[in-house]
Amino acid sequence: MMLAVLFLVAAPYPQALAERVVGTALRDGVAYSRLQDLTDSVGPRLSGSAGAEAAVAWALRKFQEDGVPAHTEPATVPHWVRGEERAELLPAKGVAALKLAVTAFGGSPGTPSEGIEGDVVEVHTLDEVQALGAGAKGKIVFFNHAMSTASGKTGYGAFVDLRTHGPAEAAKAGAAAAFVRSLATASFRSPHTGTTDFAEGAPRVPAAALSTEDADLFHRLLVRGAQVRVRLWLGCKTLPDVQSANVVAEVRGREKPEEVVLLGAHLDSWDLAQGAIDDGAGAVIVMEAARLAAQLRPPPRRTIRVVLFMNEENGLAGGKAYAKAHEAEAPHHVAALESDSGAGGPLGIVLRAGGDGKALLAPWLAPLKTVGAARFVDGEAGGADLSPLGPLQVPFVSVRQDTAHYFDIHHSAADTFDKVDRDDISRTAAAVSWVAVSLAEMEGTLVRPPPTPPRRRGPPDQPQPAASPPPSAVQQRR
Amino acid sequence: MMLAVLFLVAAPYPQALAERVVGTALRDGVAYSRLQDLTDSVGPRLSGSAGAEAAVAWALRKFQEDGVPAHTEPATVPHWVRGEERAELLPAKGVAALKLAVTAFGGSPGTPSEGIEGDVVEVHTLDEVQALGAGAKGKIVFFNHAMSTASGKTGYGAFVDLRTHGPAEAAKAGAAAAFVRSLATASFRSPHTGTTDFAEGAPRVPAAALSTEDADLFHRLLVRGAQVRVRLWLGCKTLPDVQSANVVAEVRGREKPEEVVLLGAHLDSWDLAQGAIDDGAGAVIVMEAARLAAQLRPPPRRTIRVVLFMNEENGLAGGKAYAKAHEAEAPHHVAALESDSGAGGPLGIVLRAGGDGKALLAPWLAPLKTVGAARFVDGEAGGADLSPLGPLQVPFVSVRQDTAHYFDIHHSAADTFDKVDRDDISRTAAAVSWVAVSLAEMEGTLVRPPPTPPRRRGPPDQPQPAASPPPSAVQQRR
Repeated sequence: MMLAVLFLVAAPYPQALAERVVGTALRDGVAYSRLQDLTDSVGPRLSGSAGAEAAVAWALRKFQEDGVPAHTEPATVPHWVRGEERAELLPAKGVAALKLAVTAFGGSPGTPSEGIEGDVVEVHTLDEVQALGAGAKGKIVFFNHAMSTASGKTGYGAFVDLRTHGPAEAAKAGAAAAFVRSLATASFRSPHTGTTDFAEGAPRVPAAALSTEDADLFHRLLVRGAQVRVRLWLGCKTLPDVQSANVVAEVRGREKPEEVVLLGAHLDSWDLAQGAIDDGAGAVIVMEAARLAAQLRPPPRRTIRVVLFMNEENGLAGGKAYAKAHEAEAPHHVAALESDSGAGGPLGIVLRAGGDGKALLAPWLAPLKTVGAARFVDGEAGGADLSPLGPLQVPFVSVRQDTAHYFDIHHSAADTFDKVDRDDISRTAAAVSWVAVSLAEMEGTLVRPPPTPPRRRGPPDQPQPAASPPPSAVQQRR
Repeated sequence: MMLAVLFLVAAPYPQALAERVVGTALRDGVAYSRLQDLTDSVGPRLSGSAGAEAAVAWALRKFQEDGVPAHTEPATVPHWVRGEERAELLPAKGVAALKLAVTAFGGSPGTPSEGIEGDVVEVHTLDEVQALGAGAKGKIVFFNHAMSTASGKTGYGAFVDLRTHGPAEAAKAGAAAAFVRSLATASFRSPHTGTTDFAEGAPRVPAAALSTEDADLFHRLLVRGAQVRVRLWLGCKTLPDVQSANVVAEVRGREKPEEVVLLGAHLDSWDLAQGAIDDGAGAVIVMEAARLAAQLRPPPRRTIRVVLFMNEENGLAGGKAYAKAHEAEAPHHVAALESDSGAGGPLGIVLRAGGDGKALLAPWLAPLKTVGAARFVDGEAGGADLSPLGPLQVPFVSVRQDTAHYFDIHHSAADTFDKVDRDDISRTAAAVSWVAVSLAEMEGTLVRPPPTPPRRRGPPDQPQPAASPPPSAVQQRR
């Protein structure tokens, strides 16, 4: 026989409030239908493109439809365009000619119109490039790696530096070009783009992702001692910067309007596809929180502010511009949540706050039982667009999502609406909305954490909520 | 208590023979290493291409290395070349511009250099095209379907007619071009090519596969009443026919050399990738049977003949040429086995023979227990290249394989060596080799079946061994 003990604890919120937020998000499925509208009617929206500007107009229109006051705030963004791109493995002894599956990295310069031809040399770390010495001269440096999972030691965070910094290292070593094996957990010859960084004035080389299949082929051939010689044509280039914008929307607080619960996601996407999971999903999820909060009578105690950032993918201009413009207001940001982990279902809540933040938030989590997220989980709270707020000690809260298949399609041409499950995204929208309302409604606020430590190297690669099971290593993403 | 009854039946073969065939295939893994050589050093080998001719030379060389006498037999093949290909969804009200993921079908004409532009109209059957009447005029007819499994009612066989005959129907109706949703069980924006047929002198239109994602997008937009307008550029064309060849190799029988056990696979592949599973795998599997049979002392009672057919993918010239050249010899073909279902592991044996073929073969199956195939399973024996032998009443035997993931990459740019598992292909090579030796060694021969019925429509779409579970409908493949 077992002894059943019933604890009756009064919830710190009216049950009807939870139903109006969580229940409505699940019933309406607005995040899902709105994501279809964004992906199909706005489409790709790389910073500086017409699509990005259309996305800004779209977001303003949608906030208006939802009765949420919104405006734009300026952000000056890079304008990189892709152009044609192709590469060929050249025939050699024991090597068949093959059209390769490649895609340029954002920020890459193009090749001359006749292309670049070179022998491929394989490396696995940034240090190995330096070890090549003169052996890198005129070569195409190929960064291979063992990414096979979303997180952990074989995850995105373990290898993303090869993409962000590898081509710059190859350029410094005198290479002619650089390939990086796609940062992908699955592939049908589908290369994954992403940004690569060259320091101002430092040498640059054309740099492209190579499909995992072609990376495997290169490796097989090189192990056999064959010559791997490639011709690469990239038509990409960087045009003058463009004046663009974050979209900022607010549901003003009834008692403490100056205290802000910030919800962020990014409106820009890569250009290869519809940007459904990265980060159309995040955008519609935080928009749903605003829509639901705007329907509450009375409105929550504090202000819920939704920022759709521009240029997360290749510059972070929007995130930086927001932090700069709102620096004086930072002490009044009582919490910030970024939604940039795709459209998977919610797994739980991650906190980065001082004191015992969990004790404060825990009594509010019961309504998340129905969506499977009524618990705290390990991981890193925050996100790339929020990273400039870390030094300002803003507490971060994340709804960790299932990202098991996120890196199958992330940054690839396969990031399309069909990959999104209505139930999953609705549950995450419900969880984010309820967490936002909780943070805006609860009596106290989270204790501010110590400032975030300085970045390891290069531009801000931000921690991300990782897939189940919890990662042993800090996850980096961009 | 259970009663254990032990049947001791003398096997009709020496145990050492089974070990020399099955054991060696599993230990050596030659099918796997040879497939790597074919895919990496010969690569794509579409009929008429330099790659196809290189494959013929490669096969002759490998048979020579194996001590298996081989020669070529002529086959005149089409020479279709792909060229550049791209398509764009044009912006309209509620429709974002998007670069589409398309690939031309073999046999398609190209577009004018400025492309073809038209509104998309969706159909689901060949009959629906005729029902469009004048509504098809100048349109781009889009064949959508519900393929989601390898076999059965949502399988390849259920929808392949849309690809082989849909574009011709669209052309007859006055359409400007045709798209067919990829015949695929998975996709990362990876369109699947394949052949499409236009009757001699009948109207032709440019015809391309559309990735499943883009097909879903078209469907979503059309359901909403949006205009789906596309511009399509295809650089493909058909050049004059080319003299090519089947490669025919033989291990001559010790007692009845005139009796032939025929093993077939096709050496040609599509041009988008390495042709690893379609049908490099089949080629190296039947080559392994010849290699192992050639090592037997004494050799099997009957002749084992391996034919690597040319042009299975887009014309079947090799299969037809073989049947014609060897028609007089057909009554001495005691069995024929085609290996064209990828590199998956073996599931069991399928027979198409008269009388009680199973009773004859069953005592020989015990050595296949170790590879999981010591049983008869339902399905269709035969294959496209063997189909011209059906009317000549040649008994067909198949080793049915696991094809659950075959149509994920079949005919796409993702058909690359990395998709092949060494253990799976070794087990299938062992099974095919042992079945071949059994058929060549057993005392009697299979009873000849009735001739195959006439084909339903168009060129030979042949039955294939289907994935587990056994299909309810006859599977068609090409």
